[in-house]
Amino acid sequence: MKYDKKTLLKRKIKHIDIKKFNSIPLIESFNDMAFQSRNLARACRIYDMMLKDRDCTVILCLAGSLVSAGLKKVILDMVNHNMIDVIVSSGAIVVDQDFFEGLGFNHYRGFVNADDNKLRELMIDRIYDTFIDEEELRICDNTIKIIADSMKPGAYSSREFIYEMGKYLDKKGKNPESFVLAAYKKELPIFCPAFSDSSAGFGLVHHQTEKKDHVSIDSVKDFKELTEIKIKSKETGVVMIGGGVPKNFVQDTVVAADILGVDAPMHKYAVQLTVADERDGALSGSTFKEASSWGKVDQSYEQMVFSEATITFPILVSYAYHKGSWKQRKDKRFNCLFQ
Amino acid sequence: MKYDKKTLLKRKIKHIDIKKFNSIPLIESFNDMAFQSRNLARACRIYDMMLKDRDCTVILCLAGSLVSAGLKKVILDMVNHNMIDVIVSSGAIVVDQDFFEGLGFNHYRGFVNADDNKLRELMIDRIYDTFIDEEELRICDNTIKIIADSMKPGAYSSREFIYEMGKYLDKKGKNPESFVLAAYKKELPIFCPAFSDSSAGFGLVHHQTEKKDHVSIDSVKDFKELTEIKIKSKETGVVMIGGGVPKNFVQDTVVAADILGVDAPMHKYAVQLTVADERDGALSGSTFKEASSWGKVDQSYEQMVFSEATITFPILVSYAYHKGSWKQRKDKRFNCLFQ
Amino acid sequence: MKYDKKTLLKRKIKHIDIKKFNSIPLIESFNDMAFQSRNLARACRIYDMMLKDRDCTVILCLAGSLVSAGLKKVILDMVNHNMIDVIVSSGAIVVDQDFFEGLGFNHYRGFVNADDNKLRELMIDRIYDTFIDEEELRICDNTIKIIADSMKPGAYSSREFIYEMGKYLDKKGKNPESFVLAAYKKELPIFCPAFSDSSAGFGLVHHQTEKKDHVSIDSVKDFKELTEIKIKSKETGVVMIGGGVPKNFVQDTVVAADILGVDAPMHKYAVQLTVADERDGALSGSTFKEASSWGKVDQSYEQMVFSEATITFPILVSYAYHKGSWKQRKDKRFNCLFQ
Amino acid sequence: MKYDKKTLLKRKIKHIDIKKFNSIPLIESFNDMAFQSRNLARACRIYDMMLKDRDCTVILCLAGSLVSAGLKKVILDMVNHNMIDVIVSSGAIVVDQDFFEGLGFNHYRGFVNADDNKLRELMIDRIYDTFIDEEELRICDNTIKIIADSMKPGAYSSREFIYEMGKYLDKKGKNPESFVLAAYKKELPIFCPAFSDSSAGFGLVHHQTEKKDHVSIDSVKDFKELTEIKIKSKETGVVMIGGGVPKNFVQDTVVAADILGVDAPMHKYAVQLTVADERDGALSGSTFKEASSWGKVDQSYEQMVFSEATITFPILVSYAYHKGSWKQRKDKRFNCLFQ
Repeated sequence: MKYDKKTLLKRKIKHIDIKKFNSIPLIESFNDMAFQSRNLARACRIYDMMLKDRDCTVILCLAGSLVSAGLKKVILDMVNHNMIDVIVSSGAIVVDQDFFEGLGFNHYRGFVNADDNKLRELMIDRIYDTFIDEEELRICDNTIKIIADSMKPGAYSSREFIYEMGKYLDKKGKNPESFVLAAYKKELPIFCPAFSDSSAGFGLVHHQTEKKDHVSIDSVKDFKELTEIKIKSKETGVVMIGGGVPKNFVQDTVVAADILGVDAPMHKYAVQLTVADERDGALSGSTFKEASSWGKVDQSYEQMVFSEATITFPILVSYAYHKGSWKQRKDKRFNCLFQ
Repeated sequence: MKYDKKTLLKRKIKHIDIKKFNSIPLIESFNDMAFQSRNLARACRIYDMMLKDRDCTVILCLAGSLVSAGLKKVILDMVNHNMIDVIVSSGAIVVDQDFFEGLGFNHYRGFVNADDNKLRELMIDRIYDTFIDEEELRICDNTIKIIADSMKPGAYSSREFIYEMGKYLDKKGKNPESFVLAAYKKELPIFCPAFSDSSAGFGLVHHQTEKKDHVSIDSVKDFKELTEIKIKSKETGVVMIGGGVPKNFVQDTVVAADILGVDAPMHKYAVQLTVADERDGALSGSTFKEASSWGKVDQSYEQMVFSEATITFPILVSYAYHKGSWKQRKDKRFNCLFQ
Repeated sequence: MKYDKKTLLKRKIKHIDIKKFNSIPLIESFNDMAFQSRNLARACRIYDMMLKDRDCTVILCLAGSLVSAGLKKVILDMVNHNMIDVIVSSGAIVVDQDFFEGLGFNHYRGFVNADDNKLRELMIDRIYDTFIDEEELRICDNTIKIIADSMKPGAYSSREFIYEMGKYLDKKGKNPESFVLAAYKKELPIFCPAFSDSSAGFGLVHHQTEKKDHVSIDSVKDFKELTEIKIKSKETGVVMIGGGVPKNFVQDTVVAADILGVDAPMHKYAVQLTVADERDGALSGSTFKEASSWGKVDQSYEQMVFSEATITFPILVSYAYHKGSWKQRKDKRFNCLFQ
Repeated sequence: MKYDKKTLLKRKIKHIDIKKFNSIPLIESFNDMAFQSRNLARACRIYDMMLKDRDCTVILCLAGSLVSAGLKKVILDMVNHNMIDVIVSSGAIVVDQDFFEGLGFNHYRGFVNADDNKLRELMIDRIYDTFIDEEELRICDNTIKIIADSMKPGAYSSREFIYEMGKYLDKKGKNPESFVLAAYKKELPIFCPAFSDSSAGFGLVHHQTEKKDHVSIDSVKDFKELTEIKIKSKETGVVMIGGGVPKNFVQDTVVAADILGVDAPMHKYAVQLTVADERDGALSGSTFKEASSWGKVDQSYEQMVFSEATITFPILVSYAYHKGSWKQRKDKRFNCLFQ
């Protein structure tokens, strides 16, 4: 195998289009089967219930390397068709992956058994079977710095900063297929509770190192804003891809509302697509049943699906898309709450 | 929740029909993505290569509770459309599940958090989220005894015994949707290398307890016969659902041929759908790369897909079905080798 | 890295000696913790209860590559100190690994990212991070043939054949550290319900190919004999390492007794060390709670420990060894039942 | 089962003391075995190498419910015996668990199959098999608010805030067994890159809701400070328990240093105890080999151990404690860097 950059970065990752296949027949068959197929079918129905429920705000939680894996268009379609109202994500998905592609860069099909030392020498980063050009990532890091440099110093929520990223893409982006951009246009809030833990962190550290008066990212503000959205919503439903900080963060808003003296209901609907399980006691695999002891998730309409998301997430969203319940929904434009 | 048998055994498991949905668009999208979606797409292409290769005998390995989970028709369609030439399976799938349904019984949608003590009192058996009527299983056990009682005493391979089961269903079965029956009609061999480790074991122990001259199941004969099929085949491809004994057994035939002095090639194609992984050193999750050190599987066309089979198996077979390469294949009728 | 056989097969796997460290303090600390440490502590206590219970027959189930991983001495000590009364195992552990070492051969420390094509050319087999000399394995296969050739033709249980293997080692073995040998001497039965699915299969196929009147391995007889042991035992306890056929086989004996008209109690005690889980519906990870719906395992004293066995198995047995409850036990010599 | 608070919150979780058992003999045996036991042995040796290397700063990464599971004293001993120099953790471990116990509260042994609706009514929270008094947690939340209220408004790193928490415990704590307290006394920095994603979030949201001029938590400052520590250290080693944000955050400091124009070496040593694996492409299970393509971790001395941490973490630290290499280390007092 020849290790040069041109050869290795040849085949682009292509994003799956959930509008081009209809998973309803598959899911309807899964419904009367067993194990994870049946769980996936129930998760699909619960997601569709969220979309039918006029009172329900739908929150999408994202963790894992989803955009680099070809799932960007799935999220983009959810934004564009009012299938979600809020996104809570790990930083990498938003900055290193979606925003990165919005700047005109790509992810590439790689392979697992690569010689990682040779990759490093070529400045190619690997995520399992996917390759990224580190030189392009550095441009992305620096773009974050440029955005921060242009902002008024002060403490921002990640949502506010990501809004600025959307604005940047709107003006200077090179690929319109970005959910950061689409969310900006639709005033749909995106939160990254651990924002610095991403390419954004590099740019912002650089920014803070250079400037005494600078932008800071206040994760408390994130939590406060998301709790306000929870409070404004009559009911809430959560679609979780992976676990991690976004899962915990969203679950916690119910308790946060309570602490602020507001009697907000538990999340009425919840589905999670994950490979984690509960046996090590970690949050990512903890069951919704457990979450109901904390007063966070109602047990009536919850479903964990223990299967890998690159397969199950497009199937879930294709089902809901073709069911069409989203057609009666409007964009909730939650960003406007905070202006 | 009311625990009575009628209430609990109400909703039958229905078997998915891979002819009623076309997974080609999904798989073609998966092809340029990452992680397990891409692995599944490659597994689909490799399976299709097996079907296109005129020299290739295709062996299906089955482990896990697949038929009770609604996958019977998938296997049945593979038999009926010449998409496989040999089955190697755990005993339960063949006897407790497929043959059991051939006798007119069913599996039922249950639930995970059942009160298992109450189920036991009602003679309801649970497999994760699926229920079975133990009284019906006892009839199945006894049918095996009846078949054994009717046979000439001696040592049989499991294949020979399962052939008799097919014959029985042909005469007295109550549900034609059985791959044991279909395989019988098409002279397609089914091996269960651990045959007694199933409902068959109960019937056969009962048979042997009653009769001094009796039927015995010689697993060496199984291995000998399967090795002969391997030797007769120019090339072989393996489709594995789960791991366990069937995986090992089929992989071992290459070495067995060698020991018999025949220079049989490694399995040219191999795909496995599994949730196991290699980190505990057990065979079920061992990689095909590892198997190539043993001289069992060629590394050129192999793919493990780490995802649960109730979701991935129907997608795999629907892809190959709609590709249509099976149309040029004939039934190999390997049972005739041994007559 | 130089790929020659001498370099690659240099560092022998050494078997851990549970008498040389005392895990009681560790386990007592684990008892008041959480997750798998607490589960392991409870499994230890349940195993000790089995040993204290005068009425209890203890069955050890083995699956996975345990002996090649350095756990042979653990099993050997269990046999020699009357800590178990019956072994039910996958074939490879008994034949390819323990008997193989009894013939004077060894397993070797290897590494995961080996070039498997080069290994194959050198006739080195890989199990995850462990290497085996395929040429030595062929001698092992052939020894099985020699044993079979020397036996009176007929149908044998795997137990009977393994007894002959013990006898062979007693005469011609080159390493006394073999549990096949120790079990032979103590009349402790070893069953391999899928016996041909191992190195034994190779030797026996060779034997059957050469001889018209030959030895066959009747797995029904295995089941019948094990059920008789279950029936003779007032109570039973099961220690399972991994899942697979041994787990199912032993669980099934309760039902088999019932079918033979004997009202045998469920297994009173059960512990399993495994990495599998219940979410795919397969038997290996199915819970004992589920098994109680089938009437196989009592729910009072059962514990699954979800953690890898090379770490947990020595800790479990060291605990029970140092507790000393085995000192009051005698060898049950169940082989004598069948003479 | 009686569901009242007194009955359910009776048996306290007790923290394991790694000084009271010596895991060196166990680990030395594991060294010549296979699979995860050998991996754990290598991880132990690598951790000991870190402690022997005079130039090495040791960073401990924590994710999962470790303190509630009885691992607090392990971390405390690492702090007190200079076995680590920096902690990077999920928020819950630091705030909801360690600080919470410092306030005099406890975690309790619970059970997995609890009725979570009844628990919620009693204000008992469940983590797998562990119970927590939600009313006590609310006091913990409010204590965070009290601390924030007492601070000068402005943007703080989580490290600075946690320092204040240590100071609070020093004055008003009710249980001296707290690593937040011990770290405060030794000027050892603790970072929580997703600080609001914890009980701290509740208190801080409450604080910000009440006060216009308030404390905010700037995660960029965290990243900047941790990068400075990386830059000041000649070499670095990382001990990771679980994955998540702490793993990524610490790995990223190498790149951050590079972006700031400093040529910092990759992490020279790295071990991770985890149950996650690489197959879903998520960061938690990504291999160190992969991380080396990003220029973050050197491949020479890295080891992943795929096994659950409540079992492996105490064994790892007991080994290093009894090896005694920490005796030559001094406390690095990195907090002083930022004064």
